Amino acid sequence: MSYIKDPKGIEVRSFEMITEELGDRADRFSEQEKPIVKRLIHTTADFEYADIVEFQNDAVNSAMEALRSGCKIYCDTNMIVTGLNKIGLGKFGASAYCLVNDEDVAREAKERGVTRSMVAIERAVADKDTKIFLIGNAPTALFMLLEKMDKEGENKPKLIAGVPVGFVGCPESKAELSKYDVPFIRTNGRKGGSTVAVAVLHGILYQMYERDRY
Amino acid sequence: MSYIKDPKGIEVRSFEMITEELGDRADRFSEQEKPIVKRLIHTTADFEYADIVEFQNDAVNSAMEALRSGCKIYCDTNMIVTGLNKIGLGKFGASAYCLVNDEDVAREAKERGVTRSMVAIERAVADKDTKIFLIGNAPTALFMLLEKMDKEGENKPKLIAGVPVGFVGCPESKAELSKYDVPFIRTNGRKGGSTVAVAVLHGILYQMYERDRY
Repeated sequence: MSYIKDPKGIEVRSFEMITEELGDRADRFSEQEKPIVKRLIHTTADFEYADIVEFQNDAVNSAMEALRSGCKIYCDTNMIVTGLNKIGLGKFGASAYCLVNDEDVAREAKERGVTRSMVAIERAVADKDTKIFLIGNAPTALFMLLEKMDKEGENKPKLIAGVPVGFVGCPESKAELSKYDVPFIRTNGRKGGSTVAVAVLHGILYQMYERDRY
Repeated sequence: MSYIKDPKGIEVRSFEMITEELGDRADRFSEQEKPIVKRLIHTTADFEYADIVEFQNDAVNSAMEALRSGCKIYCDTNMIVTGLNKIGLGKFGASAYCLVNDEDVAREAKERGVTRSMVAIERAVADKDTKIFLIGNAPTALFMLLEKMDKEGENKPKLIAGVPVGFVGCPESKAELSKYDVPFIRTNGRKGGSTVAVAVLHGILYQMYERDRY
């Protein structure tokens, strides 16, 4: 069988195809946002992401600043943590973590009859080094984050990636973001997921040290 | 804010909504296949999966038999390994692994100018306890698997989940599956991914011990 086996060649050609097929649907995005939109499509093969993704409150610059300061990134699934490029994050002293499998979190969630995601978010908000939140799974985590986060001052989040996937409460949880003056990137409606959350962060991160990547 | 906070309630209601919206598009699937199709939609919020997913050669029963025998599952990303329910797999002595971050694999891939995924697959095929292959990322891994796998006898794969996502070589890699008499589940075209691969396996696994789940 004959096929492209060089990983760099595959990625370059993929982004060329995406750019071509996206055409003028990319026009509504800034030069900083376009690589993120393309990475979402690269990750899902779903061009609808170009229509549902939304950037607010200078989200990309705000996230870059937080990453450069070596912030912690809270992820609502371990899949997101696993998927993130640790070497890339490490260049800036940034790191990622998730608490949903923490035994103590599980115990408290069971007692209170809420999701583990919600309890985990409360703890992440209390950690003042955590400036970026990647929510790719649980609408309840996003609702809880918006309730509990600092609404102003130094500890207000520098980026919320509101990209949970789902049917119950999920579109509503993302709509809720509009009520707050906080930098966010969201996928309106039902679509999103752990791979989407990773793509958002990588779309930002790779611009910080691989200027020629796109 | 008022929203459903009970995780079991959220999942039950989600599957009700999916069943309702799916309607007679589910009719072409067997009773064993339907839960898998619904889980794909639950994971992606993308009903197109009902049109592009395909089951061949008694794939579900074959996978169940392999899981019951406590097989190993090779995954082409660490995200898939992280996403899989280890407690569920452990009930049958089954386990999951990935080799793409193995240092020795990386070195060999660089030397040969091929993807790490390809080298990793060669090693997984050589492990005779590995009966299930979940390919959610790299078309090159799927091509290589089809080249190198045992085509008959005891060591022929019991399930290939051919669900890589992508633009270059990806639809072609899935089309290639049709040439072989091997149990497979694939998503035709470009769509797929690590979360999709997890959904395929969970859609099978949960039927083995949670008869009332769907």
